[in-house]
Amino acid sequence: MKWGKSRNCIRELFEYGTVRKAQIGVENVYDFSLGNPSIPTPECIKESMIRILTEQNPLAIHGYTSAPGRQSLRKAIADDLNEKYGTAMEAGDIFVTCGAAAGLAAFLRGVLMPGDEVITFAPFFPEYTVFTEASGGVLVAVPPKEPDFQIDFAAFEAAISEKTRCVIVNSPNNPSGVVLSSESIRGLAEIMNAAQEKYGHPIYLLSDEPYRELVYDGIEVPCMMNFYDNTVICYSFSKALSIPGERIGYLAVSNKMAERSEVNFAIAGASRALGHINAPSLMQQVIEECLDATADISKYKENRDILYNGLTELGYSCVKPDGAFYLFVKALESDSKAFSERGKAHELLLCPADDFGCPGYIRISYCVDKDMIIRSMPAFKALIEEYK
Amino acid sequence: MKWGKSRNCIRELFEYGTVRKAQIGVENVYDFSLGNPSIPTPECIKESMIRILTEQNPLAIHGYTSAPGRQSLRKAIADDLNEKYGTAMEAGDIFVTCGAAAGLAAFLRGVLMPGDEVITFAPFFPEYTVFTEASGGVLVAVPPKEPDFQIDFAAFEAAISEKTRCVIVNSPNNPSGVVLSSESIRGLAEIMNAAQEKYGHPIYLLSDEPYRELVYDGIEVPCMMNFYDNTVICYSFSKALSIPGERIGYLAVSNKMAERSEVNFAIAGASRALGHINAPSLMQQVIEECLDATADISKYKENRDILYNGLTELGYSCVKPDGAFYLFVKALESDSKAFSERGKAHELLLCPADDFGCPGYIRISYCVDKDMIIRSMPAFKALIEEYK
Repeated sequence: MKWGKSRNCIRELFEYGTVRKAQIGVENVYDFSLGNPSIPTPECIKESMIRILTEQNPLAIHGYTSAPGRQSLRKAIADDLNEKYGTAMEAGDIFVTCGAAAGLAAFLRGVLMPGDEVITFAPFFPEYTVFTEASGGVLVAVPPKEPDFQIDFAAFEAAISEKTRCVIVNSPNNPSGVVLSSESIRGLAEIMNAAQEKYGHPIYLLSDEPYRELVYDGIEVPCMMNFYDNTVICYSFSKALSIPGERIGYLAVSNKMAERSEVNFAIAGASRALGHINAPSLMQQVIEECLDATADISKYKENRDILYNGLTELGYSCVKPDGAFYLFVKALESDSKAFSERGKAHELLLCPADDFGCPGYIRISYCVDKDMIIRSMPAFKALIEEYK
Repeated sequence: MKWGKSRNCIRELFEYGTVRKAQIGVENVYDFSLGNPSIPTPECIKESMIRILTEQNPLAIHGYTSAPGRQSLRKAIADDLNEKYGTAMEAGDIFVTCGAAAGLAAFLRGVLMPGDEVITFAPFFPEYTVFTEASGGVLVAVPPKEPDFQIDFAAFEAAISEKTRCVIVNSPNNPSGVVLSSESIRGLAEIMNAAQEKYGHPIYLLSDEPYRELVYDGIEVPCMMNFYDNTVICYSFSKALSIPGERIGYLAVSNKMAERSEVNFAIAGASRALGHINAPSLMQQVIEECLDATADISKYKENRDILYNGLTELGYSCVKPDGAFYLFVKALESDSKAFSERGKAHELLLCPADDFGCPGYIRISYCVDKDMIIRSMPAFKALIEEYK
């Protein structure tokens, strides 16, 4: 059997938490493990679902759609991107997926040839390794640029080679919360364009952006398509609409891509091979109706401010996140797994960032109840005092 | 780009139909192309959805579930199997998938090693080839046993070899509607047990049974797990509940399987690599509440009887289907694609069975409006008269 028992570290910590909460009470465990949205789903999701269920023929609601999704939804998504970013996308360039994970898996499966390399920047989402390897590729991680976690151009240039087929960026970033600046993206595009010319084949920029709408203090997330032609966006509605269990997102292939048609076919073919038939049909209609909605993210900002201010005052060091709902904190010893274990003794569930390609750090998810953050502060204080 | 533009013949015919209906009116095209359930979704689906949406916290409704599904749903599915078939399944042996396609893809991906062979019996669902090859395997088709489409034991024995890792059966069958008899399954199990002993490794029986509940005239579908220990059931709720667009089904690993735990891990690992996070969360709750429901299948039986009687009276020859919603008809010339083309001239959309491994036949889906079947009879008459 080629599939082992290796598990996702986040899930492991979460499941430890479930057991621990049963032992000592849910209010006594400070669970910062999971990136599970905590702000209410916008009302329009419920309203739209109930209206569709009440008004329409169930066979139309629950029937197959075409594999890339309802034509009207694809058109609405393309229009939405065009309005927000000034692009010129068309419905045919949108493939509606069962969430971002399925989109990443399908795109990599579609374009990678055995031995191709995929570059990403630490810290990065651990599943990139899984999806790349499952598609016959090799993930190459560019070391983090501390302390701002923008792009280390020299390290990126050193990593890029003839084997590079794809570069994955994730901004706002899980786990650091950092938003890539226009300068970073411009430099990235320059290096990639030069490499394409040098090696004579396309290098795709896969922009994984499920946290795109979760940014604070008026920060703007630049659209990669406006910087680099061979861009594919992978989006999920999970985070912005607080519906992660419903599995819906999309891939968008830039209309400026020369091999646009081939890449669209590759996505469709690979999705089919992965067992994709269509994204859940009722949810496709709901998303079309709720495309302009976002959950009220001011609560995440409030959480971020309490946590960031509280921890830096206590003496922890971390980069201030502009987006997403993670705080990336330097562990107080070099072994972040050991640090995470010591956190557990104070009932703090902190995810070591080794699997994110960034040992020495821990990830704190602040998509949690504000009161839990406030209650956890004495535990963080006790933890740092142990190291003094 | 390794993914070409090859398309599913059923989808192609369906899309031709969409265009044709716009040209000459929907009532003038006799579209038998798609296996899209046509009887109303049971009311309990709508009622359960609206109740959950009204009563529960949206974050609980739409949040992540564990990857194999909600524990209570897995338990309910195991109990349901045990009650129906006298098995002793446990919740841990159930993995809830995004439909049968995702289940087949994950299982094959989980257990196949490069070069492994998967045997199936013609006629068979064309996607078996896609899922097998995407997992590094080779699909071996055992020729059909005409006219009853049960199992040709000699041909099966000739096909089985040291390379055989898995055998896929699909009963009730798409496209023939045939239900495998207990005798067929007993013979199959005997040959497989002998082969396991001879070659010294497990050979899995993958029972793809989305049509399990769609049987007529009191026919029973035997449970493969009661005949063969190394059985995995792949089920979908699409057909029995008329919700094919919602993408929910499950894999069930027999509790009698020696390598049960390894296979459960293999399914989980492969699913993760294919981009599975969890099956749609609201629908998981709904299925748990509606597990006993089935759509009113008497309409399919009515359709089958009108179509079967009508076509055989006209002189067509076909096996009388005991289940599913397909009629498998001998084409009136050896080239069934040419026959399908001549059908189009009479506005009949009939799917040639070449891609099902059974050239010389066409598939007629009778999950359609009864009136369309009645209206189509003169066209079938005109078509057969051309061949006289």
